Amino acid sequence: VEAEDAALLTELMEPLHAADIADLLEQIDSDKRHRLIALYGKAFDGEILSELDESVREDVIAALSPEVLTEAVRELESDDVVDLIEDLEKIHQQVILEALEASDRVAVERALTFPEYSAGRLMQREVVMAPEHWSVGEAIDFMRAAEDLPEQFYHIILVDPRLRPVGHVTLGKVMSSRRQEKLADLAEPSFRTFSVTQDEEDVAYAFNQYHLISAPVVDDEGRLVGVITIDDAMIVLSEENEEDILRLAGVGPESLSDTTVQIVKQRFPWLFVNLMTAILASLVIAQFEATLAAVVALAVLMPIVASMGGNAGTQSLTVAVRALATRDLTGSNALRVIRRELVAGFLNGCVFAVLMGAIGILWFGTPMLGVVIGLAMIANLVIAGLAGILVPLTLDKVGVDPALASGVFVTTVTDVMGFFAFLGLAAVLML
Amino acid sequence: VEAEDAALLTELMEPLHAADIADLLEQIDSDKRHRLIALYGKAFDGEILSELDESVREDVIAALSPEVLTEAVRELESDDVVDLIEDLEKIHQQVILEALEASDRVAVERALTFPEYSAGRLMQREVVMAPEHWSVGEAIDFMRAAEDLPEQFYHIILVDPRLRPVGHVTLGKVMSSRRQEKLADLAEPSFRTFSVTQDEEDVAYAFNQYHLISAPVVDDEGRLVGVITIDDAMIVLSEENEEDILRLAGVGPESLSDTTVQIVKQRFPWLFVNLMTAILASLVIAQFEATLAAVVALAVLMPIVASMGGNAGTQSLTVAVRALATRDLTGSNALRVIRRELVAGFLNGCVFAVLMGAIGILWFGTPMLGVVIGLAMIANLVIAGLAGILVPLTLDKVGVDPALASGVFVTTVTDVMGFFAFLGLAAVLML
Repeated sequence: VEAEDAALLTELMEPLHAADIADLLEQIDSDKRHRLIALYGKAFDGEILSELDESVREDVIAALSPEVLTEAVRELESDDVVDLIEDLEKIHQQVILEALEASDRVAVERALTFPEYSAGRLMQREVVMAPEHWSVGEAIDFMRAAEDLPEQFYHIILVDPRLRPVGHVTLGKVMSSRRQEKLADLAEPSFRTFSVTQDEEDVAYAFNQYHLISAPVVDDEGRLVGVITIDDAMIVLSEENEEDILRLAGVGPESLSDTTVQIVKQRFPWLFVNLMTAILASLVIAQFEATLAAVVALAVLMPIVASMGGNAGTQSLTVAVRALATRDLTGSNALRVIRRELVAGFLNGCVFAVLMGAIGILWFGTPMLGVVIGLAMIANLVIAGLAGILVPLTLDKVGVDPALASGVFVTTVTDVMGFFAFLGLAAVLML
Repeated sequence: VEAEDAALLTELMEPLHAADIADLLEQIDSDKRHRLIALYGKAFDGEILSELDESVREDVIAALSPEVLTEAVRELESDDVVDLIEDLEKIHQQVILEALEASDRVAVERALTFPEYSAGRLMQREVVMAPEHWSVGEAIDFMRAAEDLPEQFYHIILVDPRLRPVGHVTLGKVMSSRRQEKLADLAEPSFRTFSVTQDEEDVAYAFNQYHLISAPVVDDEGRLVGVITIDDAMIVLSEENEEDILRLAGVGPESLSDTTVQIVKQRFPWLFVNLMTAILASLVIAQFEATLAAVVALAVLMPIVASMGGNAGTQSLTVAVRALATRDLTGSNALRVIRRELVAGFLNGCVFAVLMGAIGILWFGTPMLGVVIGLAMIANLVIAGLAGILVPLTLDKVGVDPALASGVFVTTVTDVMGFFAFLGLAAVLML
C-alpha cells in the first residue's frame, strides 16, 4: 500500500467502511498517516473524520488540503459536524466552519452555544415533522415532495401549531396504514421529549431504559428544535462506560493512539495520589516498628492483609459504582445494600480467618500469630465491604463521580485500617 | 401503596414504563414483591418480565397466577420470549412455553436450539421482506394489507427468489420515493448480514462500528431467517461492558438484588485466588527475613512498593483490556503499544524514584535506603507497565477473556517482582 500507488490504494480502500479506515489511520504512525492521506486525496470521506479518535483527528485535519476538507465536511449532518469540531482547537474549528455552507454554519454555531454534554449538542437539527391533524396520505405526499430529508429517520414527529411536539408515529405504522387515517390515531403510546439543556447522560439513560429509537428535543418554550437518535445515544452510553472503566483504574480518557508523553502525564497524577496514600499506610506501620523488630514474621504476612482488604474493597466498590451509574442503587435500597456488604464481609472474613489462621500457625509455628492474622482478616474484610459501599455513596451524594475517586479512598481506608488492626492486635496479643 | 388498595395501586402504576416497574420490583424485598404482584394482578405486563433482572425474574414468575402469566407472555415478540426464558430453570421454561400459542412456541423452541450468545438467540423472527424486483408502490400496498407486522422495523429487506437477502431499503427512503420507483434502486450502499451461529459479541461490535440500525440474519444456506435490531445490539453491548467492568474487579455477574449468601459465594473464589498470590508474595518476603530483621525501615516502606506497582499495572492493564475489547489493539500495533508502556513505565519510574528516594532519605536518614527504594521504584513501574500489556495480550491469544484473569496475574507479577527487587537490592546494597 505504501508503494505510492494512488489508484491501487483507492481501490483497496473502496470496500472499507469509514469506521475501518479511521481505525487504520489510528493504528499507523503519523508519518505513514500523512503519506496515506496525501495519496488517498479526493476520495477522503467526511465520515472518516467523524470516526477518528480525537487525538488523531487534529493531525488528519492539518494534513488534508483545504478543498478535500471542505468537500468532506459538507457531506456530514449537523450533529456530526458539531461532534467533530467541539473538541478541536480554535484554528481548526474555524477552518471547518468556513468550509460549511452558510445555513449549516449557523446551525453548527447555534449548537455550540449549548452547554457541552447537553442534548443540544447531541441532537441533529434535521427533523421530519407534520401538523397533528394530517392524515397518512398527506404525510407521504409531503415526504415525497420534500427535498432534503435526513438520511436516517424513524418517526414522524407530530407538532401543534406552535411547533410543540405532541407525539410521534413510527414509519412502519405510517406505511402499513391506509392513506385517509389520521397520524394522531397512530401515535406511539410512549413518547418522551428532552430539553436542549438536559445532560447527555440522562438522555442515554432514558434511551437504554425505555428502548427509545428517536426522541424530539425541545427548547425552553417547548418548541421542537431537533431530534436525538439511538445511534447518538449508543455512542454516549459506550463513552460513559469506557470512562467509568478507565476512571476506576485511575486512568484518564486515554487512547491507544496517545503518545508516550501523553500517557505519562495522564497516569502520573493518580500514581502520585496513590503514593501519598501509601505513605499514609507506611506511617501507620512505622508506629509499630518495635513490634515488627520483635516479630519479623509480621512483615512477611503484611502484604496478605493489604492485598485481601484492597481486593475485597474493590469488589464492593465496583458493584456500588456500577449500580449508581445504572441508577439501581438509590436512597430506598441503600440501607439494605450496606447491611448486605457488612454481613458478606463478615462471612467471607470468617472463612479466610480460619484458612489464614491455620496457614499462619503451620508456617510459623506460633498459634498466637494465627489468631492475630485471623482476627485481622475479619476486621479487614468487614471494613473493606463497608468502605466499598459507603465511599461511593458519599461521593455520589456530594456530587463527585464515584468512579473517579472511590478507588483511592477505599484502598487508603483498607490499607490504613488493615495494617492498624493487624499490627495493633499483634502488639497487644504477642508482645 | 402497601395498603392493599388494588385500584389505587393500578392507578399509580399506570403511567410507569415497564422498565421502571421492573426496577421497583427489584428494589423491594421478596415479601413485599409478592404482595404487590398479587394486588397488581391482571394488569401485569409481559414487558415487565423482560425488563426484570434474572435473579428476581424466577421469583416473580413463580408468584404470578397461570392466567396472568399466559396473558403476559403472549404479548411479547419471539426474541423477547427467548431472552426471557433462556436462563430460567426447566420447570419455569416449560410453564412459559405452554402459555404460548403453538406457532410462537415452535419459533421459540427453534431459537433455543441455536448456541447461547449467538445471533440466532438475539434475532426476532418477525421480518418485513419484499422480492427484489418490487416497486415502492407494491411494497406499500403489501404492508397495508399485512396483518401482523412487527411492532418496530426500520428496513424492508430485499430477497431473491430463494429467500436470500440481497439488500435493504430504509423506510424513510421508501416513503419519500414515488410509487413506481424500484426498491432495488433505493437500497442502502452499506448492507451486512449475520449468520445465525455468529457470536452476539461480533454482532454488537458491528452495530457499534458501522452504526447499523437493523441487519438480517441468515441460515447456513444464506436464507433469511430473522432480523437483529439496534436495541438488541445495545443491550448486548452494555452487558459486555458491565461484564468487563465487574470481571476487572474480580466480581461475577452480580446484581444488587442478589442475596448476601449469593454475593459471598460469588466473591469468595476471587478472594481465594488472591490469597494464594498474596502468599506467593509473602514467600518472597520470607526469603529476606534476615534483611528485614536488620533494617526494619524496609518493612515500613514495603506497602509503597506493592501499591505503586499494583496501581501502575492496573492502569496499563485496563487500557489494554479495553483496547482488546474494542478491537483497537491488534497484532499490527501491539509492538508499538508495548514499547510505549515500557518507556512510560520508565519515565514515571524515574520521577517517582527521585521523589521516593528523597522521602526515604529524609524520613530515615539513610542515603542508601533512598537509593534502594528509588531503584526499586523504577524496576517496579517498568515491570508493571510490561505486565499490564503483555498479560492481557497473552491471555487474549490463548483464548481466555483478558478482563477475567489479567488482574490476578498482573498483581502477582508486580507484587512478587516488586518485593524481590526492593528487598533484593536492600540485601545487596545495605547488608
